[in-house]
Amino acid sequence: RVHRIACIPGDGIGVDITEAAIQVLNKLSEVVGGFQFDFTIFDWSSKKYLERGWYMPPDGIEQLKKFDAIYFGAVGSPDVPDHISLWNLILPIRKELNQYVNRRPNRILEGVKSPLEACKIGDLDWMFIRENSEGEYSGQGGVSNESAPHAMATELTVYTRVGTERIMRFAFETARSRPKKHLILCTKSNAMRHGMVFWDKIFYEIAKEYPDVQTEKMLVDAITVRMVLHPKSMDTVVATNLHADILTDLAAALSGSIGIAPSSNLDPTRTNPSMFEPIHGSAPDIAGKGIANPVGAFWSAAEMVRWVGEEKGADALMKAFENVTSRGVKTKDLGGSENTKGVTEAVCKEIETL
Amino acid sequence: RVHRIACIPGDGIGVDITEAAIQVLNKLSEVVGGFQFDFTIFDWSSKKYLERGWYMPPDGIEQLKKFDAIYFGAVGSPDVPDHISLWNLILPIRKELNQYVNRRPNRILEGVKSPLEACKIGDLDWMFIRENSEGEYSGQGGVSNESAPHAMATELTVYTRVGTERIMRFAFETARSRPKKHLILCTKSNAMRHGMVFWDKIFYEIAKEYPDVQTEKMLVDAITVRMVLHPKSMDTVVATNLHADILTDLAAALSGSIGIAPSSNLDPTRTNPSMFEPIHGSAPDIAGKGIANPVGAFWSAAEMVRWVGEEKGADALMKAFENVTSRGVKTKDLGGSENTKGVTEAVCKEIETL
Ligand SMILES: CC(C)[C@H](C(=O)O)[C@@H](O)C(=O)O
Ligand SMILES: CC(C)[C@H](C(=O)O)[C@@H](O)C(=O)O
Repeated sequence: RVHRIACIPGDGIGVDITEAAIQVLNKLSEVVGGFQFDFTIFDWSSKKYLERGWYMPPDGIEQLKKFDAIYFGAVGSPDVPDHISLWNLILPIRKELNQYVNRRPNRILEGVKSPLEACKIGDLDWMFIRENSEGEYSGQGGVSNESAPHAMATELTVYTRVGTERIMRFAFETARSRPKKHLILCTKSNAMRHGMVFWDKIFYEIAKEYPDVQTEKMLVDAITVRMVLHPKSMDTVVATNLHADILTDLAAALSGSIGIAPSSNLDPTRTNPSMFEPIHGSAPDIAGKGIANPVGAFWSAAEMVRWVGEEKGADALMKAFENVTSRGVKTKDLGGSENTKGVTEAVCKEIETL
Repeated sequence: RVHRIACIPGDGIGVDITEAAIQVLNKLSEVVGGFQFDFTIFDWSSKKYLERGWYMPPDGIEQLKKFDAIYFGAVGSPDVPDHISLWNLILPIRKELNQYVNRRPNRILEGVKSPLEACKIGDLDWMFIRENSEGEYSGQGGVSNESAPHAMATELTVYTRVGTERIMRFAFETARSRPKKHLILCTKSNAMRHGMVFWDKIFYEIAKEYPDVQTEKMLVDAITVRMVLHPKSMDTVVATNLHADILTDLAAALSGSIGIAPSSNLDPTRTNPSMFEPIHGSAPDIAGKGIANPVGAFWSAAEMVRWVGEEKGADALMKAFENVTSRGVKTKDLGGSENTKGVTEAVCKEIETL
């Protein structure tokens, strides 16, 4: 089987880690066998934007639709306002390809230490299901009378029934598939009394279809406390676009580094390709130095491999990079002394010996 | 001098800790001398709401205006939807008394351990300046066609020039008054491209008035990572209503417990009384058991004592409860074995011997 992968390295360390991911994926198909990846690289980046005035060409989304999956590095550059880069690249892909789920697992890998003193391997095993298509990221809003004393600006948060039901259903399915069958509804409906109350209501409507899943409602602020003080008590969490954005960065830090956590932007209907990217950003401060942690990229690649149906390959890749971290072959952010290349080569070697 | 204090114990452990705070404040005025507190208790609670249909009477805000300060316990009960309780009690007070600043300091007290292994006393000393009057808590929004397939709901986030300038100015003044003179702008203007971009713009307009304050712009999600991995690198942070709500719960947990952190809802123009409350909630699960941690209540009381001009009293109170925690006289959430009464009596005794 050949899997056609669109690669968008993007900006900063996105380039370094996409290269590392491709190297490892090629090694994986070579060793495991039975499948191959056909990579097409799209140089849609801030650098190109500054040269030619666009990130994606007008038919960019149409081009991506022809692939089996998309691998994304990172976007963001000091030379372009962030809302321009994001709203011209990553956000339109998520939205127009109907990738309405952003699935973000977290756990402490072998050989990695949580900054939380009392949190050992196995104490932190979370799954965040992030609404990825609307909510606080609707893109709607505006500014009136910008320079006047009575200037004001807005952002509109939008929850549709369609958008909310489908993410809740996905979250319940996910919770059901995990041993604990426990789902936390993340909300802030105490202070946000319109849309967030609707969000909660839909959750409880859908909950009726999943009597075997235990539910709990919790405020987003209180969840941060629980993550820090009682990590073991949590399993699956469903949260809005913004809430999950914040919680998953925190989750990555608590599991050792922002450099390890993966994310899958999924269209569960499989009408469109899904997109896989580490949750970290473009990190302009360390870009091009060859020191970025590629583990988040490998984990995201493993999620992609599983999504396209190569279970065996995905398992092998997960095992390979975790074996490597467990032996202390790690970048600086994880307390190691290796660079991107060193970790990548170690993972390739590990794949060979699996 | 007599300071007239309106006390609103509210719900759950709000009642326990307000009682503890009053006891300690009375002891403080007795021992330090030169000032007295005249407390008036308002039983505006969810219990009363269920009996009589209202939290505050129609002239509630007018009644509060006659006081020098307000001391608030907590609000929230399993028997009332949270958006009803909050929007009928705490939020109207914050908004209608023009308490546009919510000031939330955090540090690790003597005798308290951070859950972060590498974080020692002195490594975590933060000051969050929270916009407290608008932003995501505008109260605007609605639901259309609630049960229909095309149902949708909204929340409107609002930033006015007036509201944004004043919080930025307060944040810069605060940063300037601290040794590091460093201010982080918390934002999410990469994904929220209208109101949040305006928020950033006003920050930089006001920054020109404070050339001595070093500034840094940072995304709210990235700030959580920094709090966990590099706590020492942060000092003052200015953030929106929702962002700061989340970050300050996290901050409290990282400094040991949600039970210790104080908050001051300030009208810096001093036209209206300001309101002081611990950041924790009503914790229905432990309400009435006499085991709530009163430290957040004492710290909030100390902030109030300082706000009404009794510097000496505030210093004494801060010292008293920190001496007590440093001796290990602590509630269970801090790893101790005392109850609310035990800690309160220890603090009263400590005040006597200062
Ligand atoms: C790059 C940005 C749009 C993004 C987000 O806010 O979704 C990032 O923080 C993430 O978590 O994927
Ligand atoms: C009680 C609630 C309205 C509140 C808030 O969200 O402001 C609380 O979480 C806080 O932090 O003061």
